[in-house]
Parts: sequence; structure tokens; C-alpha cells
Amino acid sequence: MTLVAAPRVPEPFVRRVAAIVGEGRVSQTPPVRALYSRDMWPKTLLWTREGSFPHPPDLVAWPESAAEVAAIVRLCASEGVPLVPFGGGGGVCGGVIPLRGGISLDLKRMNRLVSLDPESGTADFECGIIGQHLEDELAKRGHTLGHFPSSIYISTLGGFLAARSAGQLSTRYGKIEDMVSSVILVTGTGEKLDTASCPELLQALVGSEGTLGVFTHARLRIHPAPEARRMQAHSFTTLADGLEAIRVLLQRGARPAVVRLYDPLDTFIVGSGKAKEAGAGPLSALKEVFEERFPAATPLFLRAALAYPATLNQLADRFLSRVLLILGFEGSREVVEAELGLAQESCRTLGGRDLGPGPGDRWFENRYKVSYKQSKIFAAGCFVDTMEVATTWDRLQGLYEAVRRALSDRALLMAHFSHAYPEGCSIYFTFAATAKGASERERLYDALWHDGLAATQKAGGCLSHHHGVGYSKSVFMAAELGEGMRLYHALKDVFDPHGILNPGKMGL
Amino acid sequence: MTLVAAPRVPEPFVRRVAAIVGEGRVSQTPPVRALYSRDMWPKTLLWTREGSFPHPPDLVAWPESAAEVAAIVRLCASEGVPLVPFGGGGGVCGGVIPLRGGISLDLKRMNRLVSLDPESGTADFECGIIGQHLEDELAKRGHTLGHFPSSIYISTLGGFLAARSAGQLSTRYGKIEDMVSSVILVTGTGEKLDTASCPELLQALVGSEGTLGVFTHARLRIHPAPEARRMQAHSFTTLADGLEAIRVLLQRGARPAVVRLYDPLDTFIVGSGKAKEAGAGPLSALKEVFEERFPAATPLFLRAALAYPATLNQLADRFLSRVLLILGFEGSREVVEAELGLAQESCRTLGGRDLGPGPGDRWFENRYKVSYKQSKIFAAGCFVDTMEVATTWDRLQGLYEAVRRALSDRALLMAHFSHAYPEGCSIYFTFAATAKGASERERLYDALWHDGLAATQKAGGCLSHHHGVGYSKSVFMAAELGEGMRLYHALKDVFDPHGILNPGKMGL
Repeated sequence: MTLVAAPRVPEPFVRRVAAIVGEGRVSQTPPVRALYSRDMWPKTLLWTREGSFPHPPDLVAWPESAAEVAAIVRLCASEGVPLVPFGGGGGVCGGVIPLRGGISLDLKRMNRLVSLDPESGTADFECGIIGQHLEDELAKRGHTLGHFPSSIYISTLGGFLAARSAGQLSTRYGKIEDMVSSVILVTGTGEKLDTASCPELLQALVGSEGTLGVFTHARLRIHPAPEARRMQAHSFTTLADGLEAIRVLLQRGARPAVVRLYDPLDTFIVGSGKAKEAGAGPLSALKEVFEERFPAATPLFLRAALAYPATLNQLADRFLSRVLLILGFEGSREVVEAELGLAQESCRTLGGRDLGPGPGDRWFENRYKVSYKQSKIFAAGCFVDTMEVATTWDRLQGLYEAVRRALSDRALLMAHFSHAYPEGCSIYFTFAATAKGASERERLYDALWHDGLAATQKAGGCLSHHHGVGYSKSVFMAAELGEGMRLYHALKDVFDPHGILNPGKMGL
Repeated sequence: MTLVAAPRVPEPFVRRVAAIVGEGRVSQTPPVRALYSRDMWPKTLLWTREGSFPHPPDLVAWPESAAEVAAIVRLCASEGVPLVPFGGGGGVCGGVIPLRGGISLDLKRMNRLVSLDPESGTADFECGIIGQHLEDELAKRGHTLGHFPSSIYISTLGGFLAARSAGQLSTRYGKIEDMVSSVILVTGTGEKLDTASCPELLQALVGSEGTLGVFTHARLRIHPAPEARRMQAHSFTTLADGLEAIRVLLQRGARPAVVRLYDPLDTFIVGSGKAKEAGAGPLSALKEVFEERFPAATPLFLRAALAYPATLNQLADRFLSRVLLILGFEGSREVVEAELGLAQESCRTLGGRDLGPGPGDRWFENRYKVSYKQSKIFAAGCFVDTMEVATTWDRLQGLYEAVRRALSDRALLMAHFSHAYPEGCSIYFTFAATAKGASERERLYDALWHDGLAATQKAGGCLSHHHGVGYSKSVFMAAELGEGMRLYHALKDVFDPHGILNPGKMGL
């Protein structure tokens, strides 16, 4: 059995790509094509476990300049070959799957800091740079972008921009679309466009996930490294109190860098140290299982536990109610102290119990680890995924309950609220489940997503806060955009008249 | 002699419009048509003084609902009649001049607060509401939008959105494009589009000055009325020091509501009380003239003074150097105090002399008065205008000097820096000049604008920070947008395929 089907583009096409980027920077080997057929979308992880790579690109190329990118795009446009921009492959919605074959364009060789202007607080980067390297380059020069997604080690600036990524400190620094002041992209006709000349269009291009152009450069707003950072945690009797504390704090004008409110089950698993007090004894086995979210559980135990998600959810509902709120402040010393004071006041008013800096400091130290522990769950024949939705404050708790009602009979479900705004907040659901056999698991996985997003849209939430749409949520786009979908098609016709850019994604 | 030329649309068309909005809400009388032929663009003020109204609409209509707006737009689309959305007529770039006749659509009857959600901090308004009325409605309910342009008494929400307006507290609350979360507009085909369904396109529509649609409703982000407000002023030896104080303060994360740094001549005229100390004796006559910017000067004296702009500018350069910085902070008490502390520190470090709250408090009290005193200048056979450009910090002083070099031989020129960002700032130039005879004045006026904007673009500044492009800056759009102009045309084709919406504006 071969790893992947044979490539379908003709040999002369491959030679022409090689002539643009150089011989060593094109590959058609089966392992490479298999690798670029997937990302971190859990469904592709399930496929990978089955040895299945159903959507390989025909070839992978590694350009080193915008000129090379443009030349390849022009070639693809004239030959009608699909092209998928590829960053770190850390996406979780199948956004880089080459559904119709063609070229996967790996941009990670375009990874330079082009210039930094400390006076204006801007930095120009090539878009293939890995998130952590970008922060390293800035840190060396006394600056930060303030963008710290949990995928920071394996995701690129171009990927951030493509998917409207949010980092863990987004409540202060904004999402990537707030940080970017302009991009240079290669459109589907191979033209270079610098949005500095049309800033009004920037936000229609950011978030286009490779369907309207290939981002090659970005100008970013950077900040001096913060003078001070202070973490502060409170525990509340109810989720509603915790949410209210955040809302009041944000609407009074504070901009905490970290806002993480864990729902009762997530609070229990994160381990606020208060779970036992709350009478959570019967769930302590679960705690073991999910210690630091699923680190070392035996596959058998995990599978057995996840076979009864409804019961586990009910136990959690019955015995858990306290919630943990972690806040973090950073920036100039004066403002950090003032905002911390505001936070203490808001939390106390709502009955918050002061837990000091400990829980926040621990979270901060371990903030990138969770995702790297999930492979054990898949190894155990289970799956886990996250669904990040958002809405305004008036609908937030309704959205939370709606998604829980939709999923809790079939998946163990927890959530935290981690990107807050004066007008609303996102909810980050984690769900884990299992079923007998690979195809049953896939069916269950699809059904959970379908029902979760349908419930979200019905409750007035939006499809995605920061993971993007990609392939997995593509069918929900028409309902999400409504009349806006016609305009998106019109943009697509202008930017990609040959329809070669990442076809089949985002509802296009 | 008639006031305006006879209308050109056929009578049946007017009857069909009247059938949509009702008989009393259509007018073709000459005075009304003359009134809607202009706005506050100083060149139209010069025309008005000559009794000339060269571009009247053929009729004016006052719709009361989005359905009426849509019906009129559909009628215009089918008949090929141009349509210009009209708010308060407070624009200063000729954006509402009906260059090709047709309908002026006055939206001020659509002035309701539709709903307010204090929990999420959002409010839905009809777009014809006057800015001050909007703030009054919010104030009654304990909220504010934070949008206070000096035109607030005579400009509408729709106008703000059309032109990307900035208020005097924009450094804290943002510009109108930051405050709006979605709009409902009627496109050029008469379809209603709610951008809540396509948020990525919102920023391509805001700022389109009536060329892509008619805004009928907007959802705005509102804030609780501030708990505290504190003003603080400093004086600096040089403009560079004042600018540096602002830059450091913003980049350290403070968000003052008010940032106003007056250049030496503007400082002198604003009257920091320090001008005499600085040895400005020879200019004290000028001070009289420009007391609170030109209130009660005799026409003759004013004309005589402005006949020698180069000399006046040189006197100012020679004898004035100190600059006045007014900062204002508002919001929660804790954060206001902390930011004030940061500001004191930043200003002291740069040699700022503390002037206490007085200058800021005085400015705050008189903040809307300036514009209403300018008619005397026109009455004296002179003109005055403002040019608001912006750029990043590294180019800011270069831009300031470039515009001064371009204009100071022909106009008395002063400036303040009043909308600041971590990455840059805007410059608000005021220039006043005179010439013998109406046509000479117009020629001089055009030449000053041409040379000022050409110098701006060459120095890396942008065409407009918040007044918009309208008609007066239209010829500069192609150079400003470069390759982006093609995309703007593509958007125009999608949103206004019949080309009826505000034709001839913004370079279209």
C-alpha cells in the first residue's frame, strides 16, 4: 500500500516550479506529501492514526521571497493549479488541506525581521516566521508584539493573519488583526499588493485563510517590553458572578492582559485547590485522569471514563459550582497597580475570594503545555477538541448553556472564558469523547461539531473567535454571513479570478 | 437672476419620490436646493459669499425609514438619477455637493435611539441623529459614546461614519470606526445590508462617504459615563520635546482622552499665559487679532495682517518657541490617577513645566467655539481652513516642516497635534490667507491645498486623518491609494453597479 496517491500535476509543471525556487526546494516524496495533507485539525489526527492521508498536495515548494511566491502564483493561475499557503501547520480547522491537490506553498523560509522602528513602535516581518521566533527577535531589542497563542512554537505570522488569531494576552494587546497595520500579499493573479495603500481593505483580507492572497510581509504594532506583570486570582460562588466581575472590570476601562474564567469543571481540573472544599470527592478520580488536562492517564481508564460523558457531566454539575478567575496585568508600573486595585474592588464586590497571585503564576508558567499532552487521548482511542465561540455579554450565559445542552450527552465538556472585551467575551469549550471504532469516532466527532455550532448560531454566537473557519466549519459560513456571502464571493472574484487559492475553504 | 439653475429631473420622477416619502417631504424650491448644494467646505463658503451655488441638487427628500431610503435608491438606480446622502452638512471637503444633480437625501428625520444594552455596552441608533443629540440620549441613561468632534452640534452619526470622523477625545475612545460594531446600509441597488453578517467588510464601508451605500443604522460601543476627569498642562521648550512626551506616554500604555500639543504660534494664540515670558512682544498685536482664534478683529486689520503671511510666520519663528501640551484623563478614578502620574513623570523627564489643570479646563469649556468664529474672517475677505494629516512618529516632524515650507510664504500657518496613537499622531494645520478679489482668493485657496497635500504625500503623511476626502481632495486619491484604487473601483462595481451613489467623489 502506498502512503499517498500518485501526484496528478504533469512533470513539466513541477520542473517550472523548480526553476523558480531551485531544485532543492521542491518535493514530491510521499512522506512530505502526507505531512502537508493535514494540520492539527483533530479529524486529520484521527485519519493519521489510521494511516490515511486522503488529500495530499501534488507537490510542496519552499519559496524564499515575495518574487518567488508571485512567480509560482502566476504559474498556477495560468495552468489552473490550486495553491495552498502553508505556515506551521498548527491550524485546527483543516485550513491547509489541499482538497483539490496542487501546490502546498511552505512559507517558513521567509522568516526575517525586515526592520524595526522603535520610535513609531512598528516592525516589519516576513510572514513565514514562527511566532516564538518573532517574539524572540523583538525581545532581543526590548520589545514585544504581545501575541502569545498556545500554538506559538508551531505557528507562523502568516497563519496568525490568515485565521485572525488571538493570543493569551489578547484582552490587553488585541488580536492579530488589531496588531497589524498593513500587509503585503500576492493576489491570485500574482500581483503584489501593499495594503498600506488601501488600509480600508486590510480587515477584509486578514482572516481570509489563503482564499484571497498569500501574505508575504506584515507591518506590526509593537510595544516596549512591559515594566511590570502582576497576576491575581479570585474564586467565585457562581459562574455568573465571575462573568459579571470581568464585565464590570472591562467596562470600567481596565485592560488586563490575562482574563481566564474557568467554568466549574474546568476550575476543578485546573485545580484551584478549592475543589475539595466544594465537596467534589466523587470526582477526584476524574481529577487524577485530567491532571493538568490529561497528562498520564492510562488509555483504558481514559476510554472507560469517556464512555459515560453524560454521567460525568452530571456529577460535575451536581458537585461543582465554584469558579476560578485568573487575571494578569502588565505594562507600566503605575497602570498595572491601578488596574489591579480596580480588579480587587470589582471581584470583592461580587463576592470573590482572593486567592493571591499563585494560581495565575502557575498558569503562566505552564501556559503552552496543554496542547502537547493531548496525543495520549488520541492514543487511547478517544478524541479531544476545542470550540471557541463568542458573543456579547447579554447573550453569553445563554450561549454557554445552549452549547452544553447540545453536547453534554455525548462528550465530557468544560469551558473557560479567556478573551474579554467591554462588549462581550469568547467561550473556549473543550470536549472529549470516544466511540467504538474509527468510523464511529469520526461520525461522533462530526455530529458534536455540527450540533455545537448549530446551537451557537441559534444562540446568537459567532462561529469562531480565533481558530478560523478552514474546512471543518466551511458548511456553516453561508448561515453565518447571510447576505455578506455574496460580497465575499465578489471579493474572491476580484482577488482570485482563476479560483486557484485554497479552494474549498471558508464556504467558497 | 435666479438663485440656482432649473432642476433637470423630469416631473414624474419627483412625483414618484413624493409617493415614497409623502408630499411634505420633498422640495425643489430654489433656497432649499441652494442650501443643499454646499457644506462647510471653505470654498463653498467663498461661493456662497459671491451668491453662487453652482451644484444644486434637483430635489431634496427627507425619508423616515430604511424602507423609504431603499425605495428611493431603487428608483434612482432604475432611472439613473444620482443620489447624495446628506447628514448635517458639516463636512469640510465638499463631500455632499451634488456634482451631477439628482437627489440630496437628508437623513436627519431618522434620528432615533433604537435600543440600548447597558450589559453589553452597545446602542443602536438611526444614522441621521445629530452628534450632540446622540450624546444627550446616552447621557440620560448614564452612558457616553466618547465622540466629540468640534462639529458635534451640526453633524450626524451617518456623517461621522461616512468620513471616519474623530472626536476631541479620540486618543482614549478611538475614532468612529473604532466605536462602530456594525452598520446597516442600503447599497446602490437598494438592498439592505447588515454588516453584522460580514464584519470583515465593515471597515471597507466606513469611510466610503456615500459612494458605496447609505448608512441607515449603526450599532455603537458605548461606555459608562466617566467617574473622573482630570486635565493637566505642561509647557516645553521645543516642539520636539512635547512630541516626545506624548510618544513616550502613549507607548507606555496610557490612554489620555485629550492630547493637544500646540505648535509655537498656536500656543501663543491659544494663550498659555507664557507667551510674554518667551519674549513675544512684537507679536502682541497679532495676539489681539487672533484672540480665541479671530473673534472680534476689524476686517481691515485682519486683511492687512494676512496680506503679509510670510512676515508673520517669520516673526513667529523668530520670537516663539515654547509649546503647550494639554492632556486630559477620564474613566475610572484609579486609572485616571495612575495615568496622570505617568504623564507627570513623562513630561518632567522631558523638561516640561507644570501648568496645572487651568489651561486644560479652559480649553474644555470652550472646546466647540472656534469654528463658529470663523465667519468674520470670510466676511473680511479672507479665508481660513484646516488640514489634518497624519503619519508615524519617525516621520512626524518631517511632515510638519514639509507642510510649513510648502505654505508659509502665502498663508499664516499654525498647527496642533491632537489625535495621538502609540505609533504616530495627526497634525491639524490651520491656515489663513487673503488675496485681492474673489477669483484670486479661490486660486490661492486651491494652490495652498494642492501644495500642502503634495508636500504631505511626499513626506509620507496621509491625505486625511478625519475630515475625509470628499470632493476637495478627490484628485489626490489615485496617488494615495496606488494599486488600492483598482480594488476600490471593484468594490464600487459591486455595491453601486449603476454608479448613482455620490458620483465624482473620492477619486471615483
